[in-house]
Amino acid sequence: MLIHSFNPPVRTLMGPGPSDVPPRVLEALSRPTIGHLDPAFITMMDELKELLQYAFQTENALTMPISAPGSAGMETCFVNLVEPGDKVIVCQNGVFGGRMKENVERCGGIAVLVEDAWGEAIDAGKLEDALKAHADTRIVAMVHAETSTGAQSNVATLVKLAHKHDCLTIVDTVTSLGGTPVKVDEWEIDAIYSGSQKCLSCTPGLSPVSFNERALDKVRNRKTRVQSWFMDLNLVMGYWGEGAKRAYHHTAPINALYSLHEALLILMEEGLDAAWKRHHKNHLALRAGLEAMGLTFIVKEADRLPQLNAVSIPDGVDDAAVRSRLLKEYNLEIGAGLGALAGKVWRIGLMGHSSRAENILLCIGALESVLGNMGAEIKLGVALPAMQKVLGKS
Amino acid sequence: MLIHSFNPPVRTLMGPGPSDVPPRVLEALSRPTIGHLDPAFITMMDELKELLQYAFQTENALTMPISAPGSAGMETCFVNLVEPGDKVIVCQNGVFGGRMKENVERCGGIAVLVEDAWGEAIDAGKLEDALKAHADTRIVAMVHAETSTGAQSNVATLVKLAHKHDCLTIVDTVTSLGGTPVKVDEWEIDAIYSGSQKCLSCTPGLSPVSFNERALDKVRNRKTRVQSWFMDLNLVMGYWGEGAKRAYHHTAPINALYSLHEALLILMEEGLDAAWKRHHKNHLALRAGLEAMGLTFIVKEADRLPQLNAVSIPDGVDDAAVRSRLLKEYNLEIGAGLGALAGKVWRIGLMGHSSRAENILLCIGALESVLGNMGAEIKLGVALPAMQKVLGKS
Repeated sequence: MLIHSFNPPVRTLMGPGPSDVPPRVLEALSRPTIGHLDPAFITMMDELKELLQYAFQTENALTMPISAPGSAGMETCFVNLVEPGDKVIVCQNGVFGGRMKENVERCGGIAVLVEDAWGEAIDAGKLEDALKAHADTRIVAMVHAETSTGAQSNVATLVKLAHKHDCLTIVDTVTSLGGTPVKVDEWEIDAIYSGSQKCLSCTPGLSPVSFNERALDKVRNRKTRVQSWFMDLNLVMGYWGEGAKRAYHHTAPINALYSLHEALLILMEEGLDAAWKRHHKNHLALRAGLEAMGLTFIVKEADRLPQLNAVSIPDGVDDAAVRSRLLKEYNLEIGAGLGALAGKVWRIGLMGHSSRAENILLCIGALESVLGNMGAEIKLGVALPAMQKVLGKS
Repeated sequence: MLIHSFNPPVRTLMGPGPSDVPPRVLEALSRPTIGHLDPAFITMMDELKELLQYAFQTENALTMPISAPGSAGMETCFVNLVEPGDKVIVCQNGVFGGRMKENVERCGGIAVLVEDAWGEAIDAGKLEDALKAHADTRIVAMVHAETSTGAQSNVATLVKLAHKHDCLTIVDTVTSLGGTPVKVDEWEIDAIYSGSQKCLSCTPGLSPVSFNERALDKVRNRKTRVQSWFMDLNLVMGYWGEGAKRAYHHTAPINALYSLHEALLILMEEGLDAAWKRHHKNHLALRAGLEAMGLTFIVKEADRLPQLNAVSIPDGVDDAAVRSRLLKEYNLEIGAGLGALAGKVWRIGLMGHSSRAENILLCIGALESVLGNMGAEIKLGVALPAMQKVLGKS
């Protein structure tokens, strides 16, 4: 094989992540690499922590990015908080709840699944029943924004319930952070993780996490060692923690952290409220276009994530062929279904920098063109005006 | 705190890693992000695998970068190969052997330490004695190039010994890969990991690994589940493995992988033999300068790594003050001692792109200037000529 430098095509990323990365963030990535113990780098780390605290709306001292993708952020929460024999209630309404269960079991914990249909929000009543039935539960884990379905759950309510039953909470906000409200302190979330490549529009590979004192008490007072050396917060805190000596633990992914710093700065400049409003408005515009075309959402209106729009694939339409044509003809990526929804839905992301009028226009126009061309039963000529009507509103 | 974009200073990186990252690699990092299931990305992954196979000198099908730093590469080897109760001999002659022992124990394995003095190579005789004394040993783990001391061990011999006693081998080549010969197939290494930020001169954050069929047989036939979901090779293989469906496991760190592709391409263009020769020659030049100045190496000549030069700090010299002045006055980073060697040695890296004549000149000149200025007992005016004499040789 003759190998040359890799020059990727320029895509518009409207899948479930990564989202479009703004030029400022890409440029930050390519700044000169410095050492992970360089005083200049330490200053950057302090700023990064503050920017993350803003994004998470928390004053938690242990707020930092894990040096690996969101799945490792998830695992960091579980390996540190779950001890062998601990009972953990996992609310599952999609793929990522299932991954949480896997994590619990690999930590030697006992997972109790509270299941809701895929595409629905987590039912607080069911959680309460489970908490009553399993009085020895120590932790409740839940996904705020299910990336596999586009459904959002009421984390504030669910966390309150868990606390009423003396449980700690682990919350997945991989797809929500920066796109819809996530309020760690106000909602009293104990341990939270997210991803860099969704509504933060940074490149993939980092997982912001935050732990409150209740969670850290549990970590500090474990009877057993954390099974992962790489993810052991007792060690990571020596590098990232409050008043830490910045003791060497592992070599931080320097340039990736530059880019997260820049992405979070962009979020702070826009402001969380403005970012949430933008995501909401753009979702309404995309929705107007998709629905005018005749496509239907799988999540009911009240529970829909504005940044991840899962719509049913019309009968008789070849899922892979449509996505392939969108990619080849328009350089547009939309997401396939995942797990039980594979082949049944498309997931259209409007995350972070991808949540822009021009992207919605491209997506609606390209989808109408490709579906029309393939003879799918959709309404032609009405989607763009419907979308533009919403975008035109101030 | 008022936060702006982070503009790092431009340093010359001559510590234990990260090393200087060439402009080509930094530029590759900032190319447009595409999806991790994009056909163009899959092609890049295939090339990346081939480039890594070249760097590791292996035909192992499972050769890929772990989406996290070297410590996670280490942990990936241990969590997959060590089952609870497995006896593992860990050869320790520095910090990273100690970290291996930690990994064994966190996997529920029984670690048997075979210790050599810090700064010495691993003694094959001691390993053989241990293998005889512990006939139930399943795995032997060793560090090829100890980043904490600059000592290199004879992996070919040690692996042969381990195999004679029916043990699998795990080898740490974080600091050696690309700098001194690493021959996975010829030496019959079963599981190996490295890091992106040393002699490959890529940015930190990725850990290339390779597993042969013997190692994978053990993974496939485990009696217990791998304790880490993120690092479970049974799952990772679905995305990276031979003939894999590229099934979604986690979101790959897209841009970081572009940069590793570029860094490995640079290595292939230069050729492994040429890279090894360059590292060796530049080490001789640095050594000539340092020794002329009166500094002494802690590792005996036969076992020295050309890419990591650990020298004793002269009596009465303030370690931190010297490094701080090198950084402030010359933008030059050299490494401090680690673990038992903290405050006793400096570690001067000549890794990958950092292994250049201009860097050696800077390092020798700056060190002589700062040490001389601080009144240290070194010989002045002789280091640069000694160094230049070696560099001048063809």
